Amino acid sequence: MTKTGVFYVGVDLGGTSLRALVADDEYKTVGVKKVRTVTTGGPARLIRKIATLVESTLEEAGIARSLVRAVSVGAPGPIDRARGIVEEAPNLGWRRVPLRSELRQLLRVPVFVENDVNVGLAGEHALGAGRGARNLVGIFVGTGIGGALILNGELYEGSRGGAGEIGHTVLMVDGPLCGCGRRGCAEALASRTAMERDVRAAIKAGRKSNVLRIMKKKNKERMTSSIIAAALKKDDPLMREVMERAQFHLGILCSNVVNLLDPECVVIGGGIVERLKDSYVDPIRETAFEYFLRPADRERVRIVAGKLGDNAGALGAIVLAKQRLL
Amino acid sequence: MTKTGVFYVGVDLGGTSLRALVADDEYKTVGVKKVRTVTTGGPARLIRKIATLVESTLEEAGIARSLVRAVSVGAPGPIDRARGIVEEAPNLGWRRVPLRSELRQLLRVPVFVENDVNVGLAGEHALGAGRGARNLVGIFVGTGIGGALILNGELYEGSRGGAGEIGHTVLMVDGPLCGCGRRGCAEALASRTAMERDVRAAIKAGRKSNVLRIMKKKNKERMTSSIIAAALKKDDPLMREVMERAQFHLGILCSNVVNLLDPECVVIGGGIVERLKDSYVDPIRETAFEYFLRPADRERVRIVAGKLGDNAGALGAIVLAKQRLL
Repeated sequence: MTKTGVFYVGVDLGGTSLRALVADDEYKTVGVKKVRTVTTGGPARLIRKIATLVESTLEEAGIARSLVRAVSVGAPGPIDRARGIVEEAPNLGWRRVPLRSELRQLLRVPVFVENDVNVGLAGEHALGAGRGARNLVGIFVGTGIGGALILNGELYEGSRGGAGEIGHTVLMVDGPLCGCGRRGCAEALASRTAMERDVRAAIKAGRKSNVLRIMKKKNKERMTSSIIAAALKKDDPLMREVMERAQFHLGILCSNVVNLLDPECVVIGGGIVERLKDSYVDPIRETAFEYFLRPADRERVRIVAGKLGDNAGALGAIVLAKQRLL
Repeated sequence: MTKTGVFYVGVDLGGTSLRALVADDEYKTVGVKKVRTVTTGGPARLIRKIATLVESTLEEAGIARSLVRAVSVGAPGPIDRARGIVEEAPNLGWRRVPLRSELRQLLRVPVFVENDVNVGLAGEHALGAGRGARNLVGIFVGTGIGGALILNGELYEGSRGGAGEIGHTVLMVDGPLCGCGRRGCAEALASRTAMERDVRAAIKAGRKSNVLRIMKKKNKERMTSSIIAAALKKDDPLMREVMERAQFHLGILCSNVVNLLDPECVVIGGGIVERLKDSYVDPIRETAFEYFLRPADRERVRIVAGKLGDNAGALGAIVLAKQRLL
């Protein structure tokens, strides 16, 4: 059945998967498809893959290309959004890739490009856990820790589009080494990568744990969110301890940003929260509340799990495209 | 000689001193007076003292009350600026004091009330070290560490007027106890109070230092900025060590906020910087540069000493009053 009306395609371009979502003018999802990201073959190959995915998602949803107002992509790394260039995306192997112009040439519709974390927060703000907040902080925990800010109702991008690097807040001078080369960043204390490092080091030092066995059984090389969830379900004491430490540091991170920016809401998103939901966020909130400078903020500031799950990025990309088309 | 034109009075209401500054429409200072703050006798007495100071400053400058467009006060603590109420100012012993209405009744001119740190940054932004910056962070180091933010060209106050508490960013989990009751805040690591605590503890533990002798000689009970400057001039090794540690932590604080907010400029203000100028800020900048996530920010982000000195607050209060009258 061919549909009528006006439609948008949001694309979430991640280091491991690529997702396209088609929604109507009211953000009702009419189609969604996910494929694996390819990083071999250079940017041109991946951009063709994005175009093919957009086309097949539209086709399966029964939507003619002429009904599509815009395709909007959330891409990792800093973005030159005026020109639609992805400045640098290490996990794609990209550097100064003119994603917008190349994709527009392939698809012949207006294309927007925005940072992946920014689109995730824009989605939660318009349609998810952050609705109604004038000032909103997003913290996305996965292999790294990304951040985004909505201030005075709008995405705050900073002077050169680089705002939001909350994962590189130093919380512990001389703490563990971070991927960025410094020590004690939140990312080095509370990301999935940091948790895996701590679990492996403890096991090497003789601590008992089922985590490696679970990984082997599930045929995973990395301690993914599903491994973490399985280990916690088995009440693995090491996993619990490492998780509690990560949550404690995330609580302090939340409190730091609430004390500085006085927002109404902090949304915690990313892979772990999608698995563990409130059981992940509750202890983070408890620590944050303890560290709030203004006790009254405990009544006023919501610290909540993201609601849109895997679709936050693609939906948020559509939200931003609609704003820009206005 | 009686002057003509239009004038404004800025008042900087601090815990120890009270300053009134009269400026014309172009911010040219035509009179300034300073007296000691009185905290005995309750808010009514101090408010009368403010009114008397404003009147005598105008009189000495030869300016008739009818030429005054507004009196604008920078007051410590959170402010309900719509109603001109000082919510809480522990160092004045104030709680929910309707400063604006009471002062207006005494002076019969429009009165504005704003947070003291916010007015300080507004002054540096309009007239001092932060000119031309669209996004600007102010860090004011004294007995505590205050902060203020100008984002997208305007004072950012947060959802309930509480933004800017950068002094209570936890930089060192389980670090030294802060006045706020938590541990490891920037204020507990790098304020004058923290430095004095470290100097006294080291001396008690047997370290040699001239600091206490200098304090005795200058008849001071606290390690004020002038004591710090004198000890550094004598090349006191303990003072230097404690200062370097404070500067290191301030550098990390700067870097954290630059990574998060991507501003063009960080202005460091307050008593110590007024004494020590660039010799205080240079090492802070060095550490911040080391901790920047984006190496290019070293070329783009200025970390500079405030330029307006003791007058920043009073001048900034006038800047904000003029904006609000528009």
